[in-house]
Amino acid sequence: MSLIRVGLVGIGAQTKENLLPSLLQIPDVQIVAGCDLDFERAQTLRSYVRDVQVFKDVATMLSCMGLDALVLACPPQAHRDISLMAIERGVHVFVEKPPCFTLGELKEMIDAATRKKVVTGVGLNFRFARPVQQLRKIAASEKFGQVAHVQINHYANKPRAPLWGHSSTLRSFLLAQTIHSIDLTTVFGKDSVTDVHSTVQQAADAMLARIDVTFSSGRTASILTGSMFPYFEFDMKVISEKSSMITLDNLWNMTLHESEIATRVVGGDKRWRNSWQPSPLDSGYARSGYNGELTGFFNAIRTGTSFEADFVSMIPTYQVIEQVCAGEVQVGDTGLPALRVIEEKKIRSTTNA
Amino acid sequence: MSLIRVGLVGIGAQTKENLLPSLLQIPDVQIVAGCDLDFERAQTLRSYVRDVQVFKDVATMLSCMGLDALVLACPPQAHRDISLMAIERGVHVFVEKPPCFTLGELKEMIDAATRKKVVTGVGLNFRFARPVQQLRKIAASEKFGQVAHVQINHYANKPRAPLWGHSSTLRSFLLAQTIHSIDLTTVFGKDSVTDVHSTVQQAADAMLARIDVTFSSGRTASILTGSMFPYFEFDMKVISEKSSMITLDNLWNMTLHESEIATRVVGGDKRWRNSWQPSPLDSGYARSGYNGELTGFFNAIRTGTSFEADFVSMIPTYQVIEQVCAGEVQVGDTGLPALRVIEEKKIRSTTNA
Amino acid sequence: MSLIRVGLVGIGAQTKENLLPSLLQIPDVQIVAGCDLDFERAQTLRSYVRDVQVFKDVATMLSCMGLDALVLACPPQAHRDISLMAIERGVHVFVEKPPCFTLGELKEMIDAATRKKVVTGVGLNFRFARPVQQLRKIAASEKFGQVAHVQINHYANKPRAPLWGHSSTLRSFLLAQTIHSIDLTTVFGKDSVTDVHSTVQQAADAMLARIDVTFSSGRTASILTGSMFPYFEFDMKVISEKSSMITLDNLWNMTLHESEIATRVVGGDKRWRNSWQPSPLDSGYARSGYNGELTGFFNAIRTGTSFEADFVSMIPTYQVIEQVCAGEVQVGDTGLPALRVIEEKKIRSTTNA
Amino acid sequence: MSLIRVGLVGIGAQTKENLLPSLLQIPDVQIVAGCDLDFERAQTLRSYVRDVQVFKDVATMLSCMGLDALVLACPPQAHRDISLMAIERGVHVFVEKPPCFTLGELKEMIDAATRKKVVTGVGLNFRFARPVQQLRKIAASEKFGQVAHVQINHYANKPRAPLWGHSSTLRSFLLAQTIHSIDLTTVFGKDSVTDVHSTVQQAADAMLARIDVTFSSGRTASILTGSMFPYFEFDMKVISEKSSMITLDNLWNMTLHESEIATRVVGGDKRWRNSWQPSPLDSGYARSGYNGELTGFFNAIRTGTSFEADFVSMIPTYQVIEQVCAGEVQVGDTGLPALRVIEEKKIRSTTNA
Repeated sequence: MSLIRVGLVGIGAQTKENLLPSLLQIPDVQIVAGCDLDFERAQTLRSYVRDVQVFKDVATMLSCMGLDALVLACPPQAHRDISLMAIERGVHVFVEKPPCFTLGELKEMIDAATRKKVVTGVGLNFRFARPVQQLRKIAASEKFGQVAHVQINHYANKPRAPLWGHSSTLRSFLLAQTIHSIDLTTVFGKDSVTDVHSTVQQAADAMLARIDVTFSSGRTASILTGSMFPYFEFDMKVISEKSSMITLDNLWNMTLHESEIATRVVGGDKRWRNSWQPSPLDSGYARSGYNGELTGFFNAIRTGTSFEADFVSMIPTYQVIEQVCAGEVQVGDTGLPALRVIEEKKIRSTTNA
Repeated sequence: MSLIRVGLVGIGAQTKENLLPSLLQIPDVQIVAGCDLDFERAQTLRSYVRDVQVFKDVATMLSCMGLDALVLACPPQAHRDISLMAIERGVHVFVEKPPCFTLGELKEMIDAATRKKVVTGVGLNFRFARPVQQLRKIAASEKFGQVAHVQINHYANKPRAPLWGHSSTLRSFLLAQTIHSIDLTTVFGKDSVTDVHSTVQQAADAMLARIDVTFSSGRTASILTGSMFPYFEFDMKVISEKSSMITLDNLWNMTLHESEIATRVVGGDKRWRNSWQPSPLDSGYARSGYNGELTGFFNAIRTGTSFEADFVSMIPTYQVIEQVCAGEVQVGDTGLPALRVIEEKKIRSTTNA
Repeated sequence: MSLIRVGLVGIGAQTKENLLPSLLQIPDVQIVAGCDLDFERAQTLRSYVRDVQVFKDVATMLSCMGLDALVLACPPQAHRDISLMAIERGVHVFVEKPPCFTLGELKEMIDAATRKKVVTGVGLNFRFARPVQQLRKIAASEKFGQVAHVQINHYANKPRAPLWGHSSTLRSFLLAQTIHSIDLTTVFGKDSVTDVHSTVQQAADAMLARIDVTFSSGRTASILTGSMFPYFEFDMKVISEKSSMITLDNLWNMTLHESEIATRVVGGDKRWRNSWQPSPLDSGYARSGYNGELTGFFNAIRTGTSFEADFVSMIPTYQVIEQVCAGEVQVGDTGLPALRVIEEKKIRSTTNA
Repeated sequence: MSLIRVGLVGIGAQTKENLLPSLLQIPDVQIVAGCDLDFERAQTLRSYVRDVQVFKDVATMLSCMGLDALVLACPPQAHRDISLMAIERGVHVFVEKPPCFTLGELKEMIDAATRKKVVTGVGLNFRFARPVQQLRKIAASEKFGQVAHVQINHYANKPRAPLWGHSSTLRSFLLAQTIHSIDLTTVFGKDSVTDVHSTVQQAADAMLARIDVTFSSGRTASILTGSMFPYFEFDMKVISEKSSMITLDNLWNMTLHESEIATRVVGGDKRWRNSWQPSPLDSGYARSGYNGELTGFFNAIRTGTSFEADFVSMIPTYQVIEQVCAGEVQVGDTGLPALRVIEEKKIRSTTNA
């Protein structure tokens, strides 16, 4: 299978701005078909891809086009339903996040994919962002020392209402935003999630959540996130047992704090650290991870292996999401202060055995 | 009392580098005596202060010198014992942090000071650091909105063994370092502490602690701290219900993130924020708070009021410290993984009723 | 001409990493042919573009393919020669920088293009970099005030030997690197260049150059550049008569320093400034300017106008380059100190009348 | 002379905020007298220094007090006249900058001091600022390589009118502000100044100046300075022949860019650099240089040596100032554009033989 024939589903902003241009740069991947409920939107593909076939209906596209893989950027219910349809036909599927609403749905999708032996992938681009890859490499090095804690500050200003017809703003927020942060803690944590402790505050329509996760390795993670911020920002810190710390600010700048840098550089003064910036002309889709995630997905198809960010890899993340949501209560006019802590809980996970 | 006569106790590094030079800049405060168990050290005061009397023994100094106030930089047991001695004689006392080991001791000191109507003060210089004062002013403004959460990252590389003859490294660490962070959360929180949740990890002799505090107002705070870092750094963020955030990095640089800055500046792009740096030539003891704390203490003496950072103000901080320490267990060779979470707990505070 | 038929010349790194992916994102621009002296390299285009024709020889490609435009990324002599060939056939041409070696050659190319009424373009992507566009917009606003001075620090670590068969390392350096900086000074300066003063220092094979430019408007610019740096960085500052300054660091972060920001934000403290960062997920070719330059070129073709960064627009830049090179002397073993100032000169420009 | 008896002259803001507190921290230096034309201001010293004698008249103070040294913070004419008076009596003198108006005056003061063998000092605190000292140490190291160029950006928003009764705003600006920058170039340059090239622009009452200096060693320096900025900032960069660069921003943060850092830290990526920040609690007068300059002055008195920043050391700085001022012309309503380049010149220095 030297040339992979791909169909796109959902020709909206995310496809046009990130997925399509990334796909166009991957050699020997051919976009042969596109599909959108809005046929006019589907047709806009023709301005970018020569001889592409466009459809309103996925089932028809799957029947007609002999596709090797689907790439989807739709609401989660479509990711779930179309994935199952494609898997049934043996077509590999890559879906934008979130792949579905619940841990139960995720498991159903995993079962289907396992049965049909298709490669699956989820658009967890943060994990493939070039600076995060550098962090992972550094954090894995002996010199850095074993990871002790990961702190993520993930700021957003939306969603402030439920998305996709769902009833819970909290779950919508977690699936739309925090899924990236939780996924990264599972990448830097190790083995299974053993404990989750979360606190959610709400003011007007905005929320603020703190989520603490403990892993079976003894590693821990804490996330400060919410829609109660002026704009999107993303910072993370990884701390090691050897008293090293590496920080990544806004996916741009890394700083490595080590106790022994001083002697290598100028001697004597301990407040030296190493920092890194991307090149002024850094371009394309490698830094933001879109290129890496799709490249990895197609490599897995070619080599007959599983993709790192497949459906299975999301189980711990959905476990955390389920536990954070479990504490949510219906809030009425209870005479509480304006700033309400709507739930605070700690559940010993039993699902990860 | 236009001229305040002061005696210094403990002529070590903190006194020489910060307290003494700050005192020398406060008008109409006269250092008339100094005391140190090491008499040679006491004598070094003479190089800086004309006609100062030096002593080996505090009781003698108190008897001979007719002091208005003592300023102490000693171990906590000396702060406690000498404070009680000075209070008994009606001498105002300012002690470096920590003022004592336990909440019980603090309450005893408060009782004595209340009985004798002396002004007390604790060296919580972070609270008086000029940029923290700016943060407090901004956080109190209507435009910023009500505080929802305070996050403090307080990194240190010591202590890694118990201090002052105490048996617990954890309590020593909290009293030597985290006391500043906890105090700041109580400054930005409101009313009483209602919940504390903490996790302490240990690797070799270094520790990492996360402390979450909930206040009766619904405001929350989280602290990431530890001795598991290469050097001392201190960052804080204050988030408001109005989706504003102000950050202070290393007590130097402030950044104010607001959802509406864009329109004021250049229109249209929401990623603009306001930032502030101190002047290149910023000098002296105002930025680090040493000047502010001492000035405030002496003003309180002059005006017969209580000082903002007096013994009483430390009750919530010691409540938090007691609760974090309550979970500490004796750790033997238990076959746990190298990185151990030695305690994880949440106690509903009953002491603040 | 709704669909523009494009041929690529030179299928090397710059084409593959920046030009090709940018072209693939521009609607209704079709890459129909590619050409490279190395035919295998030309053939690699087929992995990215369906049904593309590949050639070893430009003349053949021009004859066979009925192209509307050529996009070239070659050495300057090829840019010059192939441009002239394409212009002769009425084909629009976009060349990577540098378009040619000398001011004389540039004028010859301009004459040809004027005669044949083709649209020309040069790959001056810095000018189209999104943050530079923001700078230009701010600098043009009345609130900012009239530009007084532009300072550019443009660091590089190469070239350290002559390029493209040319004999001068200095000219090679100016054409390969400084061309961007000089071009930006002409964008922020106004009207014609009236004076150039330059100093070039050389140590081993690395050079350091300072170039001061005065414009007929009274605006000035200064450039510090060279190959005597560890890696590529690019910072610029624009200062206005109204005491405002805007800085752009490494094409990422902008900071706007104004005398009146204080009152808008928190009152009273004058060290507040506004700063801007790109989104953590900023992706693609807009920030680096590759998308903007190509979009502008094709828009000019469609609308029958001239492109902002056309051959004519480069005259002032080549005037400056000629003047900096005019001072270069042959350096032998002259017993000068290791660090030699090889030329220092100031020429009153006469070419801009 | 174990105890040095010092008299202060000029009890204004600079004395109270920086010189006095620095002096109070230097062991065995005793402030015994103070003098100010405004006697009330002189008397304020008594709130800080026990038993200090205060005067309205310097001559009287010199006669009465048996002083070892004077420390002055006055206008330049007073620095000049009182220095000469003190030198005549064999009293060592430390004057704030500027010590005088012209190179001629400076030479007269040098002659007097040489004749009477007194130690002289000028308040060039930038030179003694702790981070500048670190820069000097790094720049002197073999690993860094020989300095090739120093770039200083020195922003100010005043003076915008002549100071001290002088007629020239330009000279006032250079003496009040740029004296620091020029002095630093002479510290990093080497041997004598061989060339100066300067450009001064003026808009309304604000000015912008660029000054390029070449030294006999072949090292060069460039200064961008002016009163045309919103507030005071100070950045410098030192570039070496070995392609290293060290930058200092606002006297706070240093960054060391080296071509070989990569391999030491994480291998493979060349965009790593080393950076340094002061401690969050950095306090006092060491970072801003006030402590260092005064300590150095008194050490020189004690050891009978000359002080690094003595009157003689300022000759190159005044040479540069004279040359920048030499080009100044009287500007009338000449019909020039609003933004005028009032002078542009390059003079081969002959005074440094």
